[in-house]
Amino acid sequence: MKTYDALMEFSRETGALAQVAGRLGWDQETMMPAGAADQRAEEMAAMESVLHARRSDPRLAEALDHIDPQTLDQVGQAQLRHIRRAYDRAIKVPAALSSRIARVTSRAQGIWARARADEDVAAFLPILREVIALKREEGAALAAGGDLYDAMMDDYEPGATAAQLSAMYDALRPGLTELRAAVRAAPAPAPLDHVFDEAAQMALSTKLAQAFGYDLTRGRVDKAVHPFSSGSGQDVRITTRTNPRDPFNCFYSTIHEVGHAAYEQNISRDYLLTPLGAGVSMGVHESQSRIYENQIGRSRAFTGWLYGQMRDSFGDFGIPDEDSFYRVVNRVSDGFIRTEADELQYNLHVLLRFDLERALMSGDLPVDDLEAAWNDRFWADFGFAVDRPSNGVLQDVHWSIGVFGYFPTYSLGNVFAGCLNAAMRRDLPKLDDDLARGDTSAATGWLQAKVQIHGGLYEPRDLITRACGAAPSEAPLMAYLTEKFSDLYGLRP
Amino acid sequence: MKTYDALMEFSRETGALAQVAGRLGWDQETMMPAGAADQRAEEMAAMESVLHARRSDPRLAEALDHIDPQTLDQVGQAQLRHIRRAYDRAIKVPAALSSRIARVTSRAQGIWARARADEDVAAFLPILREVIALKREEGAALAAGGDLYDAMMDDYEPGATAAQLSAMYDALRPGLTELRAAVRAAPAPAPLDHVFDEAAQMALSTKLAQAFGYDLTRGRVDKAVHPFSSGSGQDVRITTRTNPRDPFNCFYSTIHEVGHAAYEQNISRDYLLTPLGAGVSMGVHESQSRIYENQIGRSRAFTGWLYGQMRDSFGDFGIPDEDSFYRVVNRVSDGFIRTEADELQYNLHVLLRFDLERALMSGDLPVDDLEAAWNDRFWADFGFAVDRPSNGVLQDVHWSIGVFGYFPTYSLGNVFAGCLNAAMRRDLPKLDDDLARGDTSAATGWLQAKVQIHGGLYEPRDLITRACGAAPSEAPLMAYLTEKFSDLYGLRP
Repeated sequence: MKTYDALMEFSRETGALAQVAGRLGWDQETMMPAGAADQRAEEMAAMESVLHARRSDPRLAEALDHIDPQTLDQVGQAQLRHIRRAYDRAIKVPAALSSRIARVTSRAQGIWARARADEDVAAFLPILREVIALKREEGAALAAGGDLYDAMMDDYEPGATAAQLSAMYDALRPGLTELRAAVRAAPAPAPLDHVFDEAAQMALSTKLAQAFGYDLTRGRVDKAVHPFSSGSGQDVRITTRTNPRDPFNCFYSTIHEVGHAAYEQNISRDYLLTPLGAGVSMGVHESQSRIYENQIGRSRAFTGWLYGQMRDSFGDFGIPDEDSFYRVVNRVSDGFIRTEADELQYNLHVLLRFDLERALMSGDLPVDDLEAAWNDRFWADFGFAVDRPSNGVLQDVHWSIGVFGYFPTYSLGNVFAGCLNAAMRRDLPKLDDDLARGDTSAATGWLQAKVQIHGGLYEPRDLITRACGAAPSEAPLMAYLTEKFSDLYGLRP
Repeated sequence: MKTYDALMEFSRETGALAQVAGRLGWDQETMMPAGAADQRAEEMAAMESVLHARRSDPRLAEALDHIDPQTLDQVGQAQLRHIRRAYDRAIKVPAALSSRIARVTSRAQGIWARARADEDVAAFLPILREVIALKREEGAALAAGGDLYDAMMDDYEPGATAAQLSAMYDALRPGLTELRAAVRAAPAPAPLDHVFDEAAQMALSTKLAQAFGYDLTRGRVDKAVHPFSSGSGQDVRITTRTNPRDPFNCFYSTIHEVGHAAYEQNISRDYLLTPLGAGVSMGVHESQSRIYENQIGRSRAFTGWLYGQMRDSFGDFGIPDEDSFYRVVNRVSDGFIRTEADELQYNLHVLLRFDLERALMSGDLPVDDLEAAWNDRFWADFGFAVDRPSNGVLQDVHWSIGVFGYFPTYSLGNVFAGCLNAAMRRDLPKLDDDLARGDTSAATGWLQAKVQIHGGLYEPRDLITRACGAAPSEAPLMAYLTEKFSDLYGLRP
């Protein structure tokens, strides 16, 4: 037990340092003066180097070999599993390769940003080819003979395999394209047409954050270009943004980030700063942000309450009643951009990227053919053509910074949210009565007890299976979307 | 050279980590949610532990032994001197003693805060006795046979000795008490009596910061309970505060902190994140903040410009002209609190603490007699009695957190500022013409070239001697104060 205690103390200290590094990232997006960028890069690199040295410290291997897991309880065994996984990953990739990837992707991000601004795909492809070659080398080191793409995903969704995900996604895709086509053929409501005071948006945004259980004594809300959540435990901060013509952007960004933040805030206090003290995977994280945002936040019941709040804050903004408001909140329209996509179309954007990046990694898709492949797939799924690269293959930062295997976790989060929502609605048959009063506590309490409090105790799939009483499947999400949008658009279900 | 380069790379990385730790401190005072305090304590402790391990890394000793300083230029030799000093200090104090001091002072600070609130000196003395015993143990380890108090000061003012400082301060004290008594016997101007909009104070405060050359692309101004400056190089942030009835608190806090921040911002870019890339001592730091605040910011010429700015911002605030304004800015009144003291009386507060803390450390002053000694000395220097402990011996946090040897650097800063001001005025005979237009560039440019750009290249006394062409002495400060306040209060000089 002495070795285990020492290992956990070391691990908590590493956890504390990781929180510090994370907070530097928050600072960079919210507070840092622009002229500090070079120095900040050195500060981040120094923190990463300290963290890497700790995660690959040979004393960890000695301690892990020395401890008999059978002498530990379930929590101790889970802690060991996380420490071993992080150690194994840390020692598999040669330091020289990691720093080459850091250097090349830092350059690639700049080239991508310029290429996107210039609508010049050709300018981006040579460096993308370089990034892909390096990431394949890294993937091969991590996979150690196993599947390269699965090894990459393991950073974001431990235990998930591409085979498992593509089975679900391939089942999802036809239903989504069909439902999308039917909805787009039906008459759509007009969008909002009003100017909404930005300070009032932030005030209501904070009220929404609190309505979803975000604890502001252990968090804060700032504005940033891209909304995000940052930190674990007692210091979990979110950002949002305002646009005078689009208050939904502010409100639903806030609710989405509160989903992430509440997950981190609600993990058992016992796990603070340990490997169990953070969200267990990107997919589970996204399930929380998505269920807060969509299945709860965009429900008929909750939008009824939100309509009253917006009337109180902004007066008459041109929407006559709750039912009309519900339709406007859930309006489906054509669009090129993943991050702006509605609940119905979002996963089609993700599935496209998932299939393309696997083909890039396997070598089946040459980089030179990437733009054509993107545009063909977009046409097939959305029924209209990409008009320019910034609306197509150049829209996301991920590939430029070497992030492969992350995209599928967005849709996995939606799949998990679908499963959780079905189970939650079974357990809480009167939930809509609460939501209609703006009271989310039964829903967020259910999610806290079933998912959030456990932190990293269970593996992601196992966690969702326990919460829902069944293994994850795309079926509940598809059923939910079909019912919701058929009803909204008057389709025959 | 290879060993030196590796040593400097290691050292820059340590410097980057120290900046990160410093920014955590900034965050704690400005942005951190209150509920994050426990976690933050663990984060800070983890950073301190990483920094301590690096500063006492045995590979440093090997490298230092391996490098022949004669093969290095002046800069390299100065870098080595700093690295060796930090290493020597880091290995001298046993880790067990450091962590005992950290634990006891953390507890002592809480006890002090309660004792101050309760006006209960007796409640503080037992833990103060414990702190003093531990600090003496630490001082003895650091002094290694030399003077214990000098060893303590070395953390803040390398190379300074109590003997040297007390010679200057003992020479200063009679002149200060005499001048103070004469001023207090003369009629004083009425204080400001107006309410000043706080947002307008912050706006003018930012203008003042820029007028003194603070680079906001590499810094930012926030509000905090206590004004401070934080960081080096490209990210140097300041805080200030507002009080609707006292705009001078805001403006002169800002100018003071800009003095600290501009020093850090103006150090040669070549020294970024190295041991030379930060202000060389607390005394030199305070000389910059004080000369910005007082000799420049409270001069007749500059206050003339400030008067116009305040009229523009606040309209008529009851002061008829520049001369009256100058007298109000430099108003001398009775007060108990060091941090609120005017330019004339400030050093009397510091000298009192310097003498008492040396006596505490030597054992000449038993802790039980501390309050009486404080009150007697206060009566002797100020001519009125301390009315309660929070206005006397319990007013400062320093001793509770184990900070001994820091107080004298405040007055050393004023002495240095006096020397620098005399030399600067000799070099820039028409400076007042610029200041009357709000143009500080000649003054701040002189300070940048003579002091700030050098960072840690020279030892503190050596730096001031080079800048002024003479060794530091209290005489210029005394002459400046005598002339200024005799003139203001119509005394016979």
